[in-house]
Amino acid sequence: MIVIRALVLENGEILLKEVEMPDLQPGEVLIRVNLAGICSTDLEMTRGYIPFSGILGHEFVGTVEKDPLGELEGKRVVGEINIGCGDCYYCRKGIKNHCQERRVLGIRQRPGAFAEFLALPRENVFPVPEVITNEEAVFTEPLAAGFQVLEQVHIPPSCSVAVLGDGRLGLLLAMVLVESGLQPVILGHHRDKMEVVASLGIKGFIAEDFGDKVDFVIECTGKTNGLQLAQELVSPRGTIVLKSTVKGKISLDMASLVTGEITVVGSRCGPFPPALRLLKGKSLPLEKMVEKKFPLSRGREGVKYASRKGVKKVVLEISG
Amino acid sequence: MIVIRALVLENGEILLKEVEMPDLQPGEVLIRVNLAGICSTDLEMTRGYIPFSGILGHEFVGTVEKDPLGELEGKRVVGEINIGCGDCYYCRKGIKNHCQERRVLGIRQRPGAFAEFLALPRENVFPVPEVITNEEAVFTEPLAAGFQVLEQVHIPPSCSVAVLGDGRLGLLLAMVLVESGLQPVILGHHRDKMEVVASLGIKGFIAEDFGDKVDFVIECTGKTNGLQLAQELVSPRGTIVLKSTVKGKISLDMASLVTGEITVVGSRCGPFPPALRLLKGKSLPLEKMVEKKFPLSRGREGVKYASRKGVKKVVLEISG
Repeated sequence: MIVIRALVLENGEILLKEVEMPDLQPGEVLIRVNLAGICSTDLEMTRGYIPFSGILGHEFVGTVEKDPLGELEGKRVVGEINIGCGDCYYCRKGIKNHCQERRVLGIRQRPGAFAEFLALPRENVFPVPEVITNEEAVFTEPLAAGFQVLEQVHIPPSCSVAVLGDGRLGLLLAMVLVESGLQPVILGHHRDKMEVVASLGIKGFIAEDFGDKVDFVIECTGKTNGLQLAQELVSPRGTIVLKSTVKGKISLDMASLVTGEITVVGSRCGPFPPALRLLKGKSLPLEKMVEKKFPLSRGREGVKYASRKGVKKVVLEISG
Repeated sequence: MIVIRALVLENGEILLKEVEMPDLQPGEVLIRVNLAGICSTDLEMTRGYIPFSGILGHEFVGTVEKDPLGELEGKRVVGEINIGCGDCYYCRKGIKNHCQERRVLGIRQRPGAFAEFLALPRENVFPVPEVITNEEAVFTEPLAAGFQVLEQVHIPPSCSVAVLGDGRLGLLLAMVLVESGLQPVILGHHRDKMEVVASLGIKGFIAEDFGDKVDFVIECTGKTNGLQLAQELVSPRGTIVLKSTVKGKISLDMASLVTGEITVVGSRCGPFPPALRLLKGKSLPLEKMVEKKFPLSRGREGVKYASRKGVKKVVLEISG
């Protein structure tokens, strides 16, 4: 038995453990993980957002170690995280993200990326163009989640758009919107974050100080009451896109959505090709987005560090 | 001073009172009310859904008694219920329904239609084609509210659609969808209502017995927890249109909207022209929709009757 090291979530505790090397199923490739990003969803999972037990992590860049078809071996890759059953109504419609039996890398019934190796179906894997560094490629998954907003919602050029939340996802989402020709503002809570926002060439405001109503509010608060905060900002007939996956319930006045004719759109994982295209353009100031790197051996510390307020992306350096 | 009789809401009580004849403001016409429909929103207002004090009622058909321009005098008309300030951002954009200073007939800062006379701006008034009876025309406003769903949301022909709620609005909305080429099912709660549903040529099911997921759920429950009931029925990536304006809050798990990538659309008042066009076609079995008529003098009794479970449309007969 070959063993590998991994960060495992067990009963809300994160442990560095030795686990079995993943067994390749038909159609899968084996990937040696180079870098893995810590996402707010990972942190939320340690708080019990989803019942999950196993290797955490779903943002990564790696190198294909073994491909039964040979083709991908040695290639640097990133990977989409939803694995459908392949056979149900949703999979046959091409939306495996909504397969009811889906497994999700490091989130649902599938060991994740905070490990020396992981296995993924070939169809989930995308080669990374050479010009993209590992430090950039590790942002593919959250950038794709940003693009999902534009897959679901058309934001006309004349409309106002605000990203609510100045955290990791909020900043990346604003970058995606800017690169898509829009002019978002970021509405945040941390005065010291406003400098980072300005350095990205984006206008930032403290949400409470922002007096205007906005046609499109992209909610990236990571807070249970994100919808309520967004409702205070959105125009009548406006649209709120919800991106936060957090545990907990809110108290909602349904009639306020009816009276304002507000649209609320839940939005999850997105398409990798536009994210890789964007990274290839080398226009994103992603070096400003990485706060700190930790080796896998200090992964517990890394997760703890990532959960501090106002911290940017924390990355696990797993193999060179 | 000329006085007229009206049903007035005061501190949650409905009283038959003598009130002053409305004074015409510039641009307004005076309408003698023939029939007025009692809507669930009226009932909800007696329960304090909106703080309102004054003449209730917003569904009506009447005859123009006085038009300073002469043109409309003697014509049978129906009328849109939102009156914008005419000068704000929303009014200039043509969406007076969302003017922040709007007055709404019998709902917000404007005396309503449960009266012998009412005043409305000329631009709100639509002549009723002769072929449409008063008993049909009184349904124009709720039918328009049904059409608003299709103004806001595109329902592709291959998608499944359910109207959740077998009450007055639910049945009318299902009729609008059928006449728009769709094949809705009605998901209700009252077994005895299923006969009425079948007599409209629409398939009806008790909501709890309905096993399938639906792409579009049009929520017409009139219940505080309508959104939750709709969430149980909607497919991943599906759309819920909220029509109920009810008092009260619900507890909502925001993450469930994100994970399912559900869209929720609040929907209120709608356009009168397609509703009148539909009525003109004489294809709607509206005679099945009127439960009982009351004269204005027995209006209190009428409102009480309309709030009984499973009752269809109750109409006030105000002038011949």
